[in-house]
Amino acid sequence: MRLSRYFLPILKENPKEAEIVSHRLMLRAGMIRQQAAGIYSWLPLGKRVLEKVNAIIREEQDRTGAIEILMPTIQSAELWKESGRYDDYGLEMLRINDRQERPMLYGPTNEEMVTDIFRSYVRSYKDLPLNLYHIQLKFRDEIRPRFGTMRSREFLMKDAYSFDIDQDAARRAYNKMFVAYLRTFSRMGLSAVPMRADTGPIGGDLSHEFIILADTGESEVFCHRDYLGFDIPDETTDFQDAGALQAIVDKWTSLYAATSEMHDADAFAAVAEDARLSARGIEVGHIFYFGTKYSEPMGAKVMGPDGKEHLVHMGSYGIGPTRLVPAIIEASHDENGIIWPKSVAPYDVSIINMKVGDGACDSASEKLYSELEAAGLDVLYDDRDERAGAKFATADLIGIPQQIVVGPRSIANGEVEIKDRKTGERENMTLEAAVNRLVSAN
Amino acid sequence: MRLSRYFLPILKENPKEAEIVSHRLMLRAGMIRQQAAGIYSWLPLGKRVLEKVNAIIREEQDRTGAIEILMPTIQSAELWKESGRYDDYGLEMLRINDRQERPMLYGPTNEEMVTDIFRSYVRSYKDLPLNLYHIQLKFRDEIRPRFGTMRSREFLMKDAYSFDIDQDAARRAYNKMFVAYLRTFSRMGLSAVPMRADTGPIGGDLSHEFIILADTGESEVFCHRDYLGFDIPDETTDFQDAGALQAIVDKWTSLYAATSEMHDADAFAAVAEDARLSARGIEVGHIFYFGTKYSEPMGAKVMGPDGKEHLVHMGSYGIGPTRLVPAIIEASHDENGIIWPKSVAPYDVSIINMKVGDGACDSASEKLYSELEAAGLDVLYDDRDERAGAKFATADLIGIPQQIVVGPRSIANGEVEIKDRKTGERENMTLEAAVNRLVSAN
Repeated sequence: MRLSRYFLPILKENPKEAEIVSHRLMLRAGMIRQQAAGIYSWLPLGKRVLEKVNAIIREEQDRTGAIEILMPTIQSAELWKESGRYDDYGLEMLRINDRQERPMLYGPTNEEMVTDIFRSYVRSYKDLPLNLYHIQLKFRDEIRPRFGTMRSREFLMKDAYSFDIDQDAARRAYNKMFVAYLRTFSRMGLSAVPMRADTGPIGGDLSHEFIILADTGESEVFCHRDYLGFDIPDETTDFQDAGALQAIVDKWTSLYAATSEMHDADAFAAVAEDARLSARGIEVGHIFYFGTKYSEPMGAKVMGPDGKEHLVHMGSYGIGPTRLVPAIIEASHDENGIIWPKSVAPYDVSIINMKVGDGACDSASEKLYSELEAAGLDVLYDDRDERAGAKFATADLIGIPQQIVVGPRSIANGEVEIKDRKTGERENMTLEAAVNRLVSAN
Repeated sequence: MRLSRYFLPILKENPKEAEIVSHRLMLRAGMIRQQAAGIYSWLPLGKRVLEKVNAIIREEQDRTGAIEILMPTIQSAELWKESGRYDDYGLEMLRINDRQERPMLYGPTNEEMVTDIFRSYVRSYKDLPLNLYHIQLKFRDEIRPRFGTMRSREFLMKDAYSFDIDQDAARRAYNKMFVAYLRTFSRMGLSAVPMRADTGPIGGDLSHEFIILADTGESEVFCHRDYLGFDIPDETTDFQDAGALQAIVDKWTSLYAATSEMHDADAFAAVAEDARLSARGIEVGHIFYFGTKYSEPMGAKVMGPDGKEHLVHMGSYGIGPTRLVPAIIEASHDENGIIWPKSVAPYDVSIINMKVGDGACDSASEKLYSELEAAGLDVLYDDRDERAGAKFATADLIGIPQQIVVGPRSIANGEVEIKDRKTGERENMTLEAAVNRLVSAN
């Protein structure tokens, strides 16, 4: 993409309304724009990052055997009356009457609807296990939306729903998601720690929040420091191997980790003092086994191998992509701007032409641009007629992992400078070497 | 994907509520499920087709230089009061009060919001031309939603918005979209004819509906038959070459073509009798130049090269992906089911194992499955323990372009049968030849 033809509305001033660094940087880098309280547009740069985040989530969901669907945003109130949640949900639910005065709502979550889909089609235990997910907008009418897309009213959620014949099978479904979540967050450069979470009236130990540690987190969390060094299950993990998955989950739940709601001060005190980590955290995922909470009132049953009807055991598994984007920024930035991990960077490399109009700079930049694009890299070419200083500041602000600086002096020696956004390391090399370096690192 | 692990809820009976073939086939093939009047879930097979349609739309929008964003579904009523449309829009607009009793609405379209984005950031003619698009859900509270996703209340729309310094530049933006639309529909196997459409109070000739001919279309249309044989601009088309684009548009508007609203019986009578085509059509796209209709009330101006402020000239350009899916089915099916064009098929090939449990059939099927997947094809492997007849019927119903039939008799000779869904042609060949054939055709 040529920056002269792009839409990247950088802000020079620090926006006053932004209380945390990710919100500030997303506004300054022209990633989002607020349209109403807690309701945002994703501008081109933000949209690209959001799609990279979604793509990683999707790959890791698919790897477990979960299947993607797309449920609508507007739901009938009738469904929610079946589960009993229509009255319970309170003011966070955006209630709507359509032109026929039928009561509808903007879905804050989809347990009811997916249970309705399940009961409409599935009759036999032979069709289980089943896990259906979608990545869809939700609306929760928060009394106090804040921190940009970290806590917005209209937001994107990946929500998966598992259906199993009994609790043991449901635990296997739960473990798949547990491991998928470890991989998902790790691929985005985040260290997420699964922490026991409140399960509400259902009880049991099958609910975990995945928390990344950040000073600006809304939750207070307590965990064993060793979690931060644990290996992440690699891509050869066999999601059909229930034993292997259970071993991973056992390891990742063997040490102390809890949010403040579930915190047990005595148990934490038993952790060796230098291993005790108390910090603030951002919840980026939540997984939950809830048994027959919805299948019972809504009549979601299958015929078992015993010839009898069984209520299905369900779980739900959420990740917020529109929250992950600022969470990644909270975890990875410096005083000059965002530092995108390669996996979610909106572009792989930016080419900074220091002197647009100079024949040697222009032709070298164009050559780099076309060769890197042809090699499959996403390239942002700063071909604007701007001061070099402004270009450097923009490149640092928007955080593209690699910068190639094409300046008149070095190009006279046939060289360009490569700068690594994260380390700040700079190196001069020939154009050919630069292309080779970037293509092979991709 | 192994069908035994997939979620493909085929219906054996013809659903009574479906009046047109695409609606019937989408329900029977387990592509969609109605959740409320005019509100649908997209089940796995449908979701895959929808994403392939979106991907083609996106590629062709990007090719013109249009830039993708994502605006929210919920909008503030304030914006619509600025343009004057809040009162005009009528009952189709889904109006909502949030918990603070602020008037909001579910966007039926985004002219106001995108104009607000534009005026917030863009100051100079140097930042033009600009075309911003998104693929986002819309809601229009139709009094009579029908025909499945062909006319639903919650639906997906690709809507692009162009901003230019004057009418001449706006025409160039219009022409880019005109040509992109020709390419977009053609890539989906559709013959779409651009027809002059009503421009309302703005006047001028810059509005076209793109109509595909289908017996079940809601509109009556009239056009010169030669349009159906016109060449589609190929992928080498230079969208920066205004002259070349104007020539394409001139050619595609040179002959008679009009919807019933714009029909001129006398002009049509002047068309040679054997070239007159009167038929029914489905509107799959609509492009529109509306000048300063929104920039004027909303104050969207840029500084021109003359040092003066100019109201920007705008256009909007819509395609309905959730309508395109049934439109493609209307254009491509037979008595056994859907016949997907390769470009939008949910899977490239289906492997039909006629005798699951038979060692030779199983191992040949597994070998084909892994080799074709490794070669980058999307493969649906019917590994269910079902009668062969039911498997054939399913494969035809869901319309995957190529079928590989693995049966005990032919596999004894080391052969499988390849069937082309569209032509019905069958051919026996070795496994190796089958893999080569399918991979090279991909």
